Amino acid sequence: MTGEEIKSTLTSYNLQSWSKQRGLNPIPVVKGEGIYFWDDQGNRYTDMSSQLVNMNLGFGNKAIGDAIKKQVDQYCFISPSYGAESRAKLAKKIVELMPDNMGKVFFTNAGADANENAVKMARMFTGKNKIFSRYRSYHGSSFGAGNLTGEPRRYPLEPGIPGFVKFFDPYLYREAVCFESEEAATAYYIRKLEEQIQYEGPDSIAAIAMETVTGSNGVIIPPKGYMPGVRALCDQYGILMICDEVMTGWGRTGKLFGFENFDVKPDIVTFAKGVTCGYIPLGGCVVSKEIAAYFDDHLLSCGLTYSGHPLACAAGIACVEYYEEAHILDNVVAVGKVLGEKLEEMKTAHPSVGDVRYIGLFSAVELVKDKVTKEPLVPYGRDPEGVMGKIIGMLKEKGFMTYSHENMILIAPPLIITKEQLIEELAKLDEVLDNVDRKIS
Amino acid sequence: MTGEEIKSTLTSYNLQSWSKQRGLNPIPVVKGEGIYFWDDQGNRYTDMSSQLVNMNLGFGNKAIGDAIKKQVDQYCFISPSYGAESRAKLAKKIVELMPDNMGKVFFTNAGADANENAVKMARMFTGKNKIFSRYRSYHGSSFGAGNLTGEPRRYPLEPGIPGFVKFFDPYLYREAVCFESEEAATAYYIRKLEEQIQYEGPDSIAAIAMETVTGSNGVIIPPKGYMPGVRALCDQYGILMICDEVMTGWGRTGKLFGFENFDVKPDIVTFAKGVTCGYIPLGGCVVSKEIAAYFDDHLLSCGLTYSGHPLACAAGIACVEYYEEAHILDNVVAVGKVLGEKLEEMKTAHPSVGDVRYIGLFSAVELVKDKVTKEPLVPYGRDPEGVMGKIIGMLKEKGFMTYSHENMILIAPPLIITKEQLIEELAKLDEVLDNVDRKIS
Repeated sequence: MTGEEIKSTLTSYNLQSWSKQRGLNPIPVVKGEGIYFWDDQGNRYTDMSSQLVNMNLGFGNKAIGDAIKKQVDQYCFISPSYGAESRAKLAKKIVELMPDNMGKVFFTNAGADANENAVKMARMFTGKNKIFSRYRSYHGSSFGAGNLTGEPRRYPLEPGIPGFVKFFDPYLYREAVCFESEEAATAYYIRKLEEQIQYEGPDSIAAIAMETVTGSNGVIIPPKGYMPGVRALCDQYGILMICDEVMTGWGRTGKLFGFENFDVKPDIVTFAKGVTCGYIPLGGCVVSKEIAAYFDDHLLSCGLTYSGHPLACAAGIACVEYYEEAHILDNVVAVGKVLGEKLEEMKTAHPSVGDVRYIGLFSAVELVKDKVTKEPLVPYGRDPEGVMGKIIGMLKEKGFMTYSHENMILIAPPLIITKEQLIEELAKLDEVLDNVDRKIS
Repeated sequence: MTGEEIKSTLTSYNLQSWSKQRGLNPIPVVKGEGIYFWDDQGNRYTDMSSQLVNMNLGFGNKAIGDAIKKQVDQYCFISPSYGAESRAKLAKKIVELMPDNMGKVFFTNAGADANENAVKMARMFTGKNKIFSRYRSYHGSSFGAGNLTGEPRRYPLEPGIPGFVKFFDPYLYREAVCFESEEAATAYYIRKLEEQIQYEGPDSIAAIAMETVTGSNGVIIPPKGYMPGVRALCDQYGILMICDEVMTGWGRTGKLFGFENFDVKPDIVTFAKGVTCGYIPLGGCVVSKEIAAYFDDHLLSCGLTYSGHPLACAAGIACVEYYEEAHILDNVVAVGKVLGEKLEEMKTAHPSVGDVRYIGLFSAVELVKDKVTKEPLVPYGRDPEGVMGKIIGMLKEKGFMTYSHENMILIAPPLIITKEQLIEELAKLDEVLDNVDRKIS
């Protein structure tokens, strides 16, 4: 197919995620390599969001590709009740990379169903019903994951599932209270969360589910002591701690898993995306030894046709081994440092940049109309004039490909990006922000 | 890994679907070819359930394998908003294979999320909330699909999502009323369904979702006129008809899609499994032109990272083309005829066989303690002595691999099975049924 044929066929026959379908104009992608991809006209683009924060190793990773081909030659599929070597190996590998309290993994197809099953298992194990999650969160768009989700993408799923309770995020930049320190903020958030636990009834709460670092909703990093504070509440009230590591897992934050930055051990960890870099769909939840043992003699009432898909697991092994062998974490830490420095410079230089938040190679730039009042560049939940889309379009013209959410630009390049590549790309962002500055002045 | 290592690693680190984990003993599978697979000891098994009714073309289909390898060399992934040729081609192919009222496809990872998104789209399009589905049904185990599901696998998801309503299946074999004819039964079921629609309030009902032929719950085939009857009610009351073709799609029933047997055009069709034979996870929902057009100017509030996964779509194209080129439907019809004849013979010969139901290469044998009273071999929802497991074990000893559900044995071999192969395998079933006969006598 020519590029034009790809475009017209897609717009005629395919429904695209999260979009009004009229006027869509998908770029035909014909080739990818490392952090770059090319359209049918030979234009090169830089992937500054790792697609949907999944392609941690970029395009064309040979180790993963070869592993897929090799597994194709054995078999692509065998059902979850049989012994597939790739399934066994990846399960062991993942559990061994987790803290010592973790026991077993249940494989799913992606992040949404990983979260669905985490909730199911938490309810079965505790015998309790309520699930706490946060307002500025995204956990997927199926009914269970979408009810965990706090942001507007959950609205089409309402009236919601009984027992899903929302609490506020530690979103210091826009908090109504002004704190002296991160520690003071943490004390406040933990106090409020405990109050809410008490009002909801601790005996009815199965789990607290959180993105370790809030992803789509703006890379909101927990303040110092926050995660251990939540962990302590969980311990005190017999509540499970679920960390959604779908975006933060597999090196994104400079640690293999996001929670390692905050000195906590969750009871359930959900993952997807980076486990295969999305080369083949795969997700899962890892549960503690205690939870795993519960299902020795209680029916695990969870299941899906493709649980532990052999081809996906083969891709997963190659991918996870690559992170280790290529010392990817070292690169994330080193290049992530440059990312942080450059973003701070932009925050200082640009009136339109209200806040920058970054950890490893995971970052967001929050745009405002006014630095003092912090008025967002577009109001929450709507952008009638398509302001953010225009900014993303300006970046795209320069070959800097990413996406926005509310008034924020996400920057999360593949973890293989070099310092030089990053600096080259951020110069493009800098230029676009000059434009935004002019618009608000 | 040796077979023993695969087993011990899996039981130590992996949680297996729908099981108590203690004592699991997964057969290490090292090779597959056509309808057969082999363990590490060289034992050969025949796949009489197409794994989980997904592996329609059996193991080692070269066309699909080659398509996967070729796509790996271009790229494995690009996000849903870009133009991937395989995504475009498969979308077009699928819509063209559907009735002329169908418009566009939304790709998902599997069957459960296909059903989740069908419900979401039906609600968005109609602006109505209630969703009807049936008691003896399975649509997946995530929260939305699990709330559609009528059988016990939905219990862990309760209290359920508001607006999900169950109605009774056209399950003639166990109906409390005795009918003169299929037509009389249909008249009864349609009348009862209309009553329930009226009591629930037609203006609040978005959709009726049905497996076209109920799958896991016993291959329950709609009686003559039933599907057109439901279609007429849908038309009369402005309700969408969703056909879950996750099991019945892609040739299983002798037609490409199950609903083609019953002379109806659904508004939404969900599919998965056979679209790639499970070589790579893929699912989706096809919606009518009218629904597709609605989303031209209304936000499609559905999305997932792997929607239209390029590698999965490449596998899908090869798989769907293979069905056509190898005239798979002809084989299903021819071998399916033998299957039906043999099953009828068994029903006549065996006191333990209460009913046999079959369409194409999709069938179930329903076991009873007494042919006259129809008392099921095991009570509904439980099997404390593991009677059905023992029967499946006896089949397994003969190399006949399938699974049971309630008091039923599922028989759904790959669609490439020959008459000779089928006859050879059914002889094993015949022997095992002799055993069951002796137990109930």
